[in-house]
Amino acid sequence: MNELGLQTGLTIVVLGASGDLARKKVIPALFALYCQDLLPEAFHIVGFARRPMTDEAFRANVMEKLTCRYVPGHSCADYMERFLSRCSYMSGEYDSRDAYLDLYQAMRLLEGDASANRMYYMAIPPFLFLDVAEALGGAGLVECGPGATWSRAIIEKPFGRDRTSSDHLVSCMGKVFTEGQTFRIDHYLGKEIVQNLLVLRFANRVFDPLWNRQHVASVHIAWKEDIGVGNRAGYFDDYGIVRDVVQNHLMQLLALVAMEPPTSFDAPHVCDEKVRVLQCIAPLAFDRLALGQYAAARFQGQDCAAYRGESGVPAGSCTPTYAAAVLHIDNDRWDGVPFFITAGKALDERTTEIRLRFRPVSSTRFHETGAALPPNELVIRVQPDEAIRLAITNKAPGLDMRLVPSELDLRYQAAFAAKIPDAYECLLLDVIRGDRSLFVRWDELAAAWDIFTPVLHELEARLVQPELYPFGGNGPESARALARRFHLG
Amino acid sequence: MNELGLQTGLTIVVLGASGDLARKKVIPALFALYCQDLLPEAFHIVGFARRPMTDEAFRANVMEKLTCRYVPGHSCADYMERFLSRCSYMSGEYDSRDAYLDLYQAMRLLEGDASANRMYYMAIPPFLFLDVAEALGGAGLVECGPGATWSRAIIEKPFGRDRTSSDHLVSCMGKVFTEGQTFRIDHYLGKEIVQNLLVLRFANRVFDPLWNRQHVASVHIAWKEDIGVGNRAGYFDDYGIVRDVVQNHLMQLLALVAMEPPTSFDAPHVCDEKVRVLQCIAPLAFDRLALGQYAAARFQGQDCAAYRGESGVPAGSCTPTYAAAVLHIDNDRWDGVPFFITAGKALDERTTEIRLRFRPVSSTRFHETGAALPPNELVIRVQPDEAIRLAITNKAPGLDMRLVPSELDLRYQAAFAAKIPDAYECLLLDVIRGDRSLFVRWDELAAAWDIFTPVLHELEARLVQPELYPFGGNGPESARALARRFHLG
Repeated sequence: MNELGLQTGLTIVVLGASGDLARKKVIPALFALYCQDLLPEAFHIVGFARRPMTDEAFRANVMEKLTCRYVPGHSCADYMERFLSRCSYMSGEYDSRDAYLDLYQAMRLLEGDASANRMYYMAIPPFLFLDVAEALGGAGLVECGPGATWSRAIIEKPFGRDRTSSDHLVSCMGKVFTEGQTFRIDHYLGKEIVQNLLVLRFANRVFDPLWNRQHVASVHIAWKEDIGVGNRAGYFDDYGIVRDVVQNHLMQLLALVAMEPPTSFDAPHVCDEKVRVLQCIAPLAFDRLALGQYAAARFQGQDCAAYRGESGVPAGSCTPTYAAAVLHIDNDRWDGVPFFITAGKALDERTTEIRLRFRPVSSTRFHETGAALPPNELVIRVQPDEAIRLAITNKAPGLDMRLVPSELDLRYQAAFAAKIPDAYECLLLDVIRGDRSLFVRWDELAAAWDIFTPVLHELEARLVQPELYPFGGNGPESARALARRFHLG
Repeated sequence: MNELGLQTGLTIVVLGASGDLARKKVIPALFALYCQDLLPEAFHIVGFARRPMTDEAFRANVMEKLTCRYVPGHSCADYMERFLSRCSYMSGEYDSRDAYLDLYQAMRLLEGDASANRMYYMAIPPFLFLDVAEALGGAGLVECGPGATWSRAIIEKPFGRDRTSSDHLVSCMGKVFTEGQTFRIDHYLGKEIVQNLLVLRFANRVFDPLWNRQHVASVHIAWKEDIGVGNRAGYFDDYGIVRDVVQNHLMQLLALVAMEPPTSFDAPHVCDEKVRVLQCIAPLAFDRLALGQYAAARFQGQDCAAYRGESGVPAGSCTPTYAAAVLHIDNDRWDGVPFFITAGKALDERTTEIRLRFRPVSSTRFHETGAALPPNELVIRVQPDEAIRLAITNKAPGLDMRLVPSELDLRYQAAFAAKIPDAYECLLLDVIRGDRSLFVRWDELAAAWDIFTPVLHELEARLVQPELYPFGGNGPESARALARRFHLG
């Protein structure tokens, strides 16, 4: 591992190793790093969960989800075999100090006399974060010393359910893992085109002069899924779409779109600017939020259940599965520009897009065409099929002066031969490297919660009913009314 | 012809009807308009030239170059037959008043009692323009009255060989055809993407804020041909590349790129602004011009002759076939921005492009990448394969922060299903419609000549030898030295 300058070994403990996140994302991403020779020579993966399982069963379970994107097909089986030989499994209760002492012994055995760093990936429900952190700390697993140069913990949303509970989590976790040892994943930050946002803005002369209230009429950040909550109903009903998607993923996108230029791209400078811009957003007002919940409908040839009909959802649940919010950033750059944030499950398609709509030009010069000119837009499609599109107006080819919308396009799949890595590959590599720029700092988290905490409490106090919308449609009418109110047509 | 509001007939006289321009461009363009139902019901085409020829021979000669782009293949023969039945031919000397009186009689016979407008396309060498105009006038062919509501003359470059001779042509022609009756073609103005230039600049919010000295580092207008002078040697040697391409086509492109927003897209407003910006350009200094002439070389598997070896070129000719010039526009928008104009025959490819290079961004933020960032560029490819490309910097997909140049693209062939009309179709239709916005007004011509007249005279007085460059290469070294002097990379 000369590339990383790491001669030290690495032990990766995956807590919740039998769950979906571990199997589908975390361990396949580690395998991808292994195939690219990006893990230290001496690495070990230890799965830990409640369910008793042999090493063999764990490996078989893991192997189902491994794919060979980075190595030639004929040597794939060899890579898998060598990778799986470094994987082992232990079962235990998450809050049992004894179990962690056993884990410690197992790790020492694997590491031998060599020094090894330690990563703890908490692929577990968030109510377990504190118990596990305390147990790890209590068993001496977080201590650094001759045996380990660093220990790092990785956790993923939800980080609390409002500002208070988030602060509580941060401060209690902080007793075991310092802020510098804590890597809070928002996996949207690992997405290729999201990482490109700051490059697009600041490595290009043509965008920065346009990136302000003088030229931008509105910004729309839209997240859509074409499926319901499925087997996540139990978790989801507790949180709802605002906590599940808007407060974290979409506020991170907003911060990257709207932030001032950072002094450098180093983590502290980037995080400082994200915090600054989030702190310029007033708490969301009740009347600038529209909520919806999906109802049964026929979609793509199937009868799709209503949210309230999903197994695990209480009969009268008023948890929103759709939210539209209008936010304003009170600074010189964005004063008066509405940021329209929409997120919904069970809509007509799966897509995440950032759309900057530019102000119109005077169309009087083009009076012959009779019609208003469509505004220019810069569209950054985060997923699927990553792309950047600049919608402009052109003369339609032909003998008349007729204006038509057209697009300057950059489609990643067509433009780049390189494979686009999964967000988790990128994020896990950054944890190993100690690069914190794609992780959520405690004060970003706090600033994002401050925007939504008051309105979330108000909704719960008033037992507000979300407007029903049909599965597979385009969300509730109240969201469109909100858009019209702010001329977001 | 309700679309044009023209119920009146139209007689189109093509002077020089047996020449290449008439056969290859003018008459095929008229046929294309006919196929699109854009000629009046009662139209007639009369070919006129010195060579005696029957109507049948003329039609056969014309038919060779007609193509059916706008009508279904199976009805193509019908369209051609009907079109050719409107074509007739007369021979005569260009300065013979009698010949024009005969022409007048023939036209009256074709037109019958109905009123008809008259278009005179002078597809003849420019030294004949004045003789022909005077003869036309003398024979009463330009008069309007009960028989004709308008008469219009169409001429094409070269319009003189310096400011004085150009003024002479303008004023003498003006005794027969008023400025309003004279349509000076620069066929680059009929090209689709050139017509789009003003739309691009003024119908789009995203370009105008960047279109100035604050953001643009340089503008490069490049014209390249991969062939020699061929059978145009006799004409070309008299004029050279500056008069043949730079003073007209490339100054028109420069004017459209650099002009201030016109009050409207109507012809007078557009021409006013083109004149204004051309008048802000100081006469080209001798030391800001590099000249070349192609030498024999092997290119594309063929032995290509030197310019001085072409048949019709005098042995010691110092006519340039390549020119590079740096111009500055002395106004608030462009102060200090070099406009680099290059034009050359016998180069490595055939292409005409306009390239705005934007100023660099500070790359200190991107110190990790180690390299200077490539500047953004907006490239408008006029021909071939019309396209608009915005060259930007992106993060290369992958686990490292590595910046790569990439492009937002709009290729006409891919983007627009519509056929791209030939420049002559568009220009001839505008003559019929009386829309003068794509034609060169006398004062534009004068302003463009003022830029080049002093340096052309100086070159001729000094008998400056152009630098030889190999056929099929990228032009003379002195042009690259000039580019380096102005940091045009």
